[in-house]
Amino acid sequence: MSDTIKYLLSEDQVPKVWYNILADLPEPLPPVIHPGTGQPIGPDDLAPLFPMALIGQEVSADREIEIPDPVRDVYRTWRPTPLHRARGLEKVLDTPAKIYYKYEGVSPAGSHKPNTAVAQAFYNKDSGVKRLSTETGAGQWGSALAFACAHFGLELDVFMVRVSFDQKPYRRAMMETFGARCVASPSEETQSGRAILAEHPDSAGSLGIAISEAVEVAAQSDDTKYALGSVLNHVLLHQTVVGQEAMLQMEMAGNWPDILVGCTGGGSNFSGLVCPFLGAKLRGGAGIRVVAVEPAACPSLTRGEYAYDFGDTSHLTPLVKMHTLGSTFVPPPFHAGGLRYHGMAPLVSHLKQLDLIEAKSYHQTECFAAGVQFARAEGIVPAPEANHAVKGAIDEALACKEAGIGRTILFNLCGHGHFDMQAYTDYFAGRLNDQSYAESELAMALSGLPSVAAE
Amino acid sequence: MSDTIKYLLSEDQVPKVWYNILADLPEPLPPVIHPGTGQPIGPDDLAPLFPMALIGQEVSADREIEIPDPVRDVYRTWRPTPLHRARGLEKVLDTPAKIYYKYEGVSPAGSHKPNTAVAQAFYNKDSGVKRLSTETGAGQWGSALAFACAHFGLELDVFMVRVSFDQKPYRRAMMETFGARCVASPSEETQSGRAILAEHPDSAGSLGIAISEAVEVAAQSDDTKYALGSVLNHVLLHQTVVGQEAMLQMEMAGNWPDILVGCTGGGSNFSGLVCPFLGAKLRGGAGIRVVAVEPAACPSLTRGEYAYDFGDTSHLTPLVKMHTLGSTFVPPPFHAGGLRYHGMAPLVSHLKQLDLIEAKSYHQTECFAAGVQFARAEGIVPAPEANHAVKGAIDEALACKEAGIGRTILFNLCGHGHFDMQAYTDYFAGRLNDQSYAESELAMALSGLPSVAAE
Repeated sequence: MSDTIKYLLSEDQVPKVWYNILADLPEPLPPVIHPGTGQPIGPDDLAPLFPMALIGQEVSADREIEIPDPVRDVYRTWRPTPLHRARGLEKVLDTPAKIYYKYEGVSPAGSHKPNTAVAQAFYNKDSGVKRLSTETGAGQWGSALAFACAHFGLELDVFMVRVSFDQKPYRRAMMETFGARCVASPSEETQSGRAILAEHPDSAGSLGIAISEAVEVAAQSDDTKYALGSVLNHVLLHQTVVGQEAMLQMEMAGNWPDILVGCTGGGSNFSGLVCPFLGAKLRGGAGIRVVAVEPAACPSLTRGEYAYDFGDTSHLTPLVKMHTLGSTFVPPPFHAGGLRYHGMAPLVSHLKQLDLIEAKSYHQTECFAAGVQFARAEGIVPAPEANHAVKGAIDEALACKEAGIGRTILFNLCGHGHFDMQAYTDYFAGRLNDQSYAESELAMALSGLPSVAAE
Repeated sequence: MSDTIKYLLSEDQVPKVWYNILADLPEPLPPVIHPGTGQPIGPDDLAPLFPMALIGQEVSADREIEIPDPVRDVYRTWRPTPLHRARGLEKVLDTPAKIYYKYEGVSPAGSHKPNTAVAQAFYNKDSGVKRLSTETGAGQWGSALAFACAHFGLELDVFMVRVSFDQKPYRRAMMETFGARCVASPSEETQSGRAILAEHPDSAGSLGIAISEAVEVAAQSDDTKYALGSVLNHVLLHQTVVGQEAMLQMEMAGNWPDILVGCTGGGSNFSGLVCPFLGAKLRGGAGIRVVAVEPAACPSLTRGEYAYDFGDTSHLTPLVKMHTLGSTFVPPPFHAGGLRYHGMAPLVSHLKQLDLIEAKSYHQTECFAAGVQFARAEGIVPAPEANHAVKGAIDEALACKEAGIGRTILFNLCGHGHFDMQAYTDYFAGRLNDQSYAESELAMALSGLPSVAAE
């Protein structure tokens, strides 16, 4: 028999803590600023939206935060996730590199999103909340939260961007199967939605509008809170179960990665994999290169400005310092909906500023080509977002081949593409749009950045 | 922490042999009959369609057949599959029963089908075959074989029933992602297809027509063979990896099933789970009840006649003795496409005749209700076919509750429903058809049974 292909941990190896890299960074994160006062915000400013336990995690400096038993119990229904040696892909590429991938697609929603959805649902339930509201684009996050709410007996309202609501009914069907209520946004249910509809009755919606609706519902109701699927510190924190498991699995494999690769939209699957490894490096461990891969059509890390900006289009959120294309920037349509965000997690932006990570961007057509190559070699059809990580890993493996060096590469295959097959159909039909990121649009968007007396 | 939720085996516990229950049965299978001569067929009759290794397995009396290393190597990319304790479902049902399920949805195609697809692709490649042809309905089998052919470097032509080709493009996209060529059937590529199109230019196609096209292509080409996804002995044999793993996992759990449940269409996922357990019972092991669950709209085991019949509508196959609704019976449209077969695997029919298994049937609406209950409790959205097994297991658990007895139930969750969300949408919209199986239609179909000088 050939060598081992996948590395499996037992249920009792599901991590017992989340790892907080802030404890190991040489510099703290820039503060979050209240747009009205220009001063750093405090916990009370966030209390209408989040339970206090999550606010505490958002600002915590503790290196380890214990995972509550009820959360670990749910994690164990699909975690630990497998780590695979990509022997098929290595063979096709004829590379001396060793390629490994952590596969988060085995979760109930098919991606890494339930890692934080379960934690957020638990803390909300635990603090007496009856209902959550959230937004979703293509539906990956909405279906993860729907699963988590079903488990803990919370109601859930999902504001789903109208164009996705109409065009991608199957993620919606999955949310409804898990018991969530799914509303097309803009809707008649909120003031924000009605205002948009009054002006644009045929509005296709946007993530920015959907966020406004979900936030409004939570802010105006005592028993309803808001949940976000990426960007925030506590969300990225919950994803560190991915990297912690991967460290154990790389030890099982008797290899340690020289290069880590992840795709970045809001930044959560990326930091989930890389932060535990980076923490080990910061505490004196082995050196490691870390590569963030983003879409060329929405290149916040590679082309954005590192500046204070709003997290949403309607400017309901506080100001955070991040790599941003401007909160009014609307990315061109491409299939990796999870990567269509104008900004980047402040933590990931901070890692970039500290030169702890690199970033590069690819057009979607070359990412789908990489995804198809991966599917034929490994038997898993990746999500369009994950294809960016696949492309990044393949390029690193080909660079190893050219240099004749057998480095070890680990990437996060953050989800499967079962609900994204229209994108593959469009790829095979040559219908994908590789619209370039327009300099003029960037300039316009950046000119809209707010003026803030930072730090 | 609570008790264990899932039982995982290591890669070296992937079974080394397939288990052949024919070696342990008190009576042999009735022979397969040539429709022209009325005499039992021999290996040479099958040689144009299958490689000799598979024909040998089709008629083997050996208890164990070694799994070739290259097949085990591919199995190890997703096998062993997990066995779950359904604690969430037990809680919702408030039953004293212990419910376990073997989950085959973690495979590349999302079902048990790759267990035989990989083996069939290997033996064909090994015998010098360049190309396979097959038929597929909704696409579950076609995508499994596409994955297997991608791995072994075989070309694949899939004749996909026209109505599914048009209405379910995402399974087709998956087949193409794995590199297969997918053709709407009836097609202009075969004599069978052209004949149908000449008479019915707008034909929606049928599985029977698609089989005729795939068989014709294989029969007329030296380097092309045919592959089938269920019904035949060698196909059922390959699925026994499921039950063998489940036996080890039930031992890990410290429990032995009193009741096994599986859904039956052609019979392969069902026998894959139950045959190893039944074999142990036949060799003097613990008693066990085995329940086959089929759709009320296509009830071959519960309402069909045990008689010699053709395996396809166009009467290109030999005659096999099985429970059949008649080869001309066209099941009404329902969503569990994998269960819409007029007959049943001869082996499963034989087990039923020997009183080793029971059979019952359900309408699809009650099966979807069970599937939604399962999804909310366990976080996995089952395939419509698998919902029949879920419904059967829930009913057994509720019977335990009524009787106050804590029996152990194990069922095969043979696949996920990610490509079947339209069915869930229709269920929530109250649009499912529970058309009854018409007695008149049965009578008509049965009257078409061929007259055979049996045995």
